[in-house]
Amino acid sequence: MQSVKDPTATRLRILQVAAGEIINNGYKAASLANILANSGVSKGALYHHFPSKLALGHAVFEELYVDRFQHFWGFPLENEAPIQALCDFFLALPSQITEDEMTQGCPVCSLAMEMSAEDECFRSQVQELFEWLCKRVQAAFVLAQQNGQLKDGVNLEASARFIVASIQGVQMQARYMEDKAKVSETLIAVVDYLKLLMR
Amino acid sequence: MQSVKDPTATRLRILQVAAGEIINNGYKAASLANILANSGVSKGALYHHFPSKLALGHAVFEELYVDRFQHFWGFPLENEAPIQALCDFFLALPSQITEDEMTQGCPVCSLAMEMSAEDECFRSQVQELFEWLCKRVQAAFVLAQQNGQLKDGVNLEASARFIVASIQGVQMQARYMEDKAKVSETLIAVVDYLKLLMR
Repeated sequence: MQSVKDPTATRLRILQVAAGEIINNGYKAASLANILANSGVSKGALYHHFPSKLALGHAVFEELYVDRFQHFWGFPLENEAPIQALCDFFLALPSQITEDEMTQGCPVCSLAMEMSAEDECFRSQVQELFEWLCKRVQAAFVLAQQNGQLKDGVNLEASARFIVASIQGVQMQARYMEDKAKVSETLIAVVDYLKLLMR
Repeated sequence: MQSVKDPTATRLRILQVAAGEIINNGYKAASLANILANSGVSKGALYHHFPSKLALGHAVFEELYVDRFQHFWGFPLENEAPIQALCDFFLALPSQITEDEMTQGCPVCSLAMEMSAEDECFRSQVQELFEWLCKRVQAAFVLAQQNGQLKDGVNLEASARFIVASIQGVQMQARYMEDKAKVSETLIAVVDYLKLLMR
């Protein structure tokens, strides 16, 4: 067994390689052999840190996906004019990511579809993270309302959930659309919807 | 080898059992052993009709998924007032399907996420079917426009693609949301959006 000089670094290395493997192949088809080969750690070291593939998957979600997701969405949503920032963010997005990144899409969406029905821990991790996003979008609407920018009669919670649904659908379209310009058009329609809600 | 008395019936039996297996487990985890056991056909008969698992998967899509999908969406979209019919359809949907059906969601969405990046035939099958849906929704907008029901300035193609995206997102939310009443709320928001576009 390979000696583990820095267990924290080894653990992080395993998580990062496993995240890449899950993003590329899905959780079920993710190969522990690939993770061992690409991280350069021994099987013993892997099982020392993660007793099972499922434990590794949950840790990838909790320790990498959550941070990346919150960082990605925090950028527009922590702005002091978050609805406008969200619109700008959506319009700029296609030019800021590669075509491969667009096709690959959001790993949280992929796990939501693949594992929600099969593993309660993944399901609740996914739900908690998307609920976080819904709450953040809802908070952005509340702020716009307080600033008198929102039209009357908007159901804040339902509209936030609808925005999140439309983004999840954009992710799905990005997976199968050959013409990525069409995906950008759907993003423009998301922005048009946001503008419909504003005065 | 089991004698095949009615090849057409055997073929259809295999397709139907395979569709169930793919819906329950995903394409990659679908087990040919389960399909053989549950259809009661021999391995020889299976390979006589479908030379590979991939050929079987593509045939399930082409011969079962496409019909079911077009039948499902044809109901509201062939109505003579299709936008209103679509609204009624979305509002009635949660009471017309079981909680299990809601969690399972649309098998075309599941395949879109699982197989688009890995198999060009699945990707193009999925794209063609969702493009069909976009075109049908767009045709519904055109009809509403001709009847003077649509507000000015609506981008018909982008709005149709956005509606489809939001429905795809609802499917994703249905996978992981424990509280199915929240999924119904997102559907209500889809209807509210459609109403925003109408005079």
